[in-house]
Amino acid sequence: MSGAPTAATEHPTGAGTPYPPLVEPGPPLTAAQTARYARHLLLPEIGDLGQRRLLAAKVLVIGAGGLGSPTLLYLAAAGVGTLGVVDDDVVEESNLHRQVIHGTSDVGRPKVESARDAVARIDPAITLRAHPERLTVDNALEIVGGYDLVLDGSDNFATRYLVADACEILGTPSVWGTILRFEGQVSVSWPGRGATYRDLFPDPPDAASVPTCSGAGVLGVLCAAVGAAMGAEAVKLLTGAGRPLVDRLLVHDALTATWRELATSPDPDREPVTSLEAVDQVCGAPSPRPPGTELSVPEVQELLLRRAAGEVDLEVVDVREPHEHAAGHLDGARLVPLGELLAGRAQLPADRPVLLYCAAGGRSGQALDHLLAEGRTDVQHLVGGYGAWLAEGRLTV
Amino acid sequence: MSGAPTAATEHPTGAGTPYPPLVEPGPPLTAAQTARYARHLLLPEIGDLGQRRLLAAKVLVIGAGGLGSPTLLYLAAAGVGTLGVVDDDVVEESNLHRQVIHGTSDVGRPKVESARDAVARIDPAITLRAHPERLTVDNALEIVGGYDLVLDGSDNFATRYLVADACEILGTPSVWGTILRFEGQVSVSWPGRGATYRDLFPDPPDAASVPTCSGAGVLGVLCAAVGAAMGAEAVKLLTGAGRPLVDRLLVHDALTATWRELATSPDPDREPVTSLEAVDQVCGAPSPRPPGTELSVPEVQELLLRRAAGEVDLEVVDVREPHEHAAGHLDGARLVPLGELLAGRAQLPADRPVLLYCAAGGRSGQALDHLLAEGRTDVQHLVGGYGAWLAEGRLTV
Repeated sequence: MSGAPTAATEHPTGAGTPYPPLVEPGPPLTAAQTARYARHLLLPEIGDLGQRRLLAAKVLVIGAGGLGSPTLLYLAAAGVGTLGVVDDDVVEESNLHRQVIHGTSDVGRPKVESARDAVARIDPAITLRAHPERLTVDNALEIVGGYDLVLDGSDNFATRYLVADACEILGTPSVWGTILRFEGQVSVSWPGRGATYRDLFPDPPDAASVPTCSGAGVLGVLCAAVGAAMGAEAVKLLTGAGRPLVDRLLVHDALTATWRELATSPDPDREPVTSLEAVDQVCGAPSPRPPGTELSVPEVQELLLRRAAGEVDLEVVDVREPHEHAAGHLDGARLVPLGELLAGRAQLPADRPVLLYCAAGGRSGQALDHLLAEGRTDVQHLVGGYGAWLAEGRLTV
Repeated sequence: MSGAPTAATEHPTGAGTPYPPLVEPGPPLTAAQTARYARHLLLPEIGDLGQRRLLAAKVLVIGAGGLGSPTLLYLAAAGVGTLGVVDDDVVEESNLHRQVIHGTSDVGRPKVESARDAVARIDPAITLRAHPERLTVDNALEIVGGYDLVLDGSDNFATRYLVADACEILGTPSVWGTILRFEGQVSVSWPGRGATYRDLFPDPPDAASVPTCSGAGVLGVLCAAVGAAMGAEAVKLLTGAGRPLVDRLLVHDALTATWRELATSPDPDREPVTSLEAVDQVCGAPSPRPPGTELSVPEVQELLLRRAAGEVDLEVVDVREPHEHAAGHLDGARLVPLGELLAGRAQLPADRPVLLYCAAGGRSGQALDHLLAEGRTDVQHLVGGYGAWLAEGRLTV
């Protein structure tokens, strides 16, 4: 994430502050629940009432990725009765080193589906509501409004500010976390009770200043550290146990195994958020790409039609894995898995333009950046990938 | 865990100390590995060589439980090429609130088997060596000797001291973690380079002073926090990245979301460990049980034979779940799932002794403690459970 928060000073651990539980207890525990949650029931801070609160709770997890993986696993195990998950991506190979709810055989599947499988394995009694879409100004209030608490593990600022603003309008608390390289941050954003995300970071950063995981890398197991902290805060907020990270920001460095705490506070001069506004998608792309390198589905279709008519020459390159290619691909596409391409093991034609695509646009964007960095200029990729192509009902030409 | 460590003082984060990587790099990465580990390859501290070290590494995880779950998941995802797991338990309902590699349908299965499935889901290319046995003075050196690094998430002091001593004799570094209620501890024990577990805790504690998870409870998601710290240390030690927790002990309190660091150091006056010695099993039982309440398989068989001969009266109670009971049970056993029993929803006969059993002895031990605490004296349970019964080839009489 960008820079230091506003109005934050380093401080020692302060005195406890009680907060009311977010959720009323559900019905008495069944015998099976008593057995399953025996180790929670022994904790006076949770106990029977706390466990019934967890079972009655509805928690929305933004992103079924690096941070969504551990939070979904542990909240399902903890007995949070209803889990929502918002994600419009499909699983890619490069997710697997940290997104442990997705396995090798899930590559190419929508992330919400492998998230559903993972939660069902732990406990089929947990309700999983899949929202296989991107959060937008049009759907954010309706989606967030259905939950008691939000866990924001989103990987881009557009979604992050949208979540923060929707939560502010609805008065919904959220736990947010970030990961980059070896560093993580975690805090609670609770409109009306403590500092919110916008109090700390009033405005989105410039696109050029934003590194992302795909550009800068991330230690896989860092996700577990930050996700664990987010999950613990969720249990504490739902049950009223302990001292949550309200007006507190934790900054973790896995390289040194250190956790620093910064005190934060609401900004009294900040204009309250009263309506949603889209934030430019500044993240998700390691750097702004040159104009004309990112093509939409209709643009690619036009290009393919013109190639079919002999008007243009073009090498179409599928950077997915062989099994994905075998399941369906653009006509005439040549298979060059991303790893081969990045390792320089594939010769791409120098005499005609190259159009890259993958399942959802992530890998082809990475391949694009790689070839641009090598000095090549006649390369483009399909935004949204083969998934978007199929979703728009385009036939291969 | 018990008490404060020896020779530990609170101190601020010190300067970095370089340690050599534990493992030599394996062969060059394949294209598929380059794609999968792309986010690690971008980190200069790991990079190509570090990833090849991880793939060549052999890490032994002690216990496929609360701490074994996140460490196995994240080390498999990180590409640690060979993972060993030592555990002789079967999955019980009360494990599921925190041991996220085991699902509802795994109840009754050996933990090493569901651990194997979880690792294979993430990456079938990872080698998993299952050691479905308890670590003993007879097998510890041979098992530990096959690995570069040990992650000790054991739940009892007998195993913990055995691991520490085997590692000291072999010179193998280990990362150890503990969890209890809301508190966790993590450190690196590295014979010859920094403080070892025995330097911090020279002798096992008294049985009476030891609370356990089954007696004192544990916040499920605490396992992720401590397991994440253990996993990050493993990656750092294997690749030589960052500043590991050598001569440093982290103490985490999830209720306050705080992490304290204690400095530790080797004890120059401690006698080096040169041979293995069994430590009494002081943990795993919430408190010492009265003599005669814990029966072996032969003792139970004799009891059942005497009942069959009309010499004694006895109520045999199976505290497992209905599907486990349906798959096979002691003749004449009455099914009273542990949850029903603990919730007081089942009437047990007052006029004759009660013999409790479950799959492995954990749940029946919990039921035994509950009934003893209620003042009942004519109760016993089968140590090792139905699994031990079958393993010893006993027929139901």
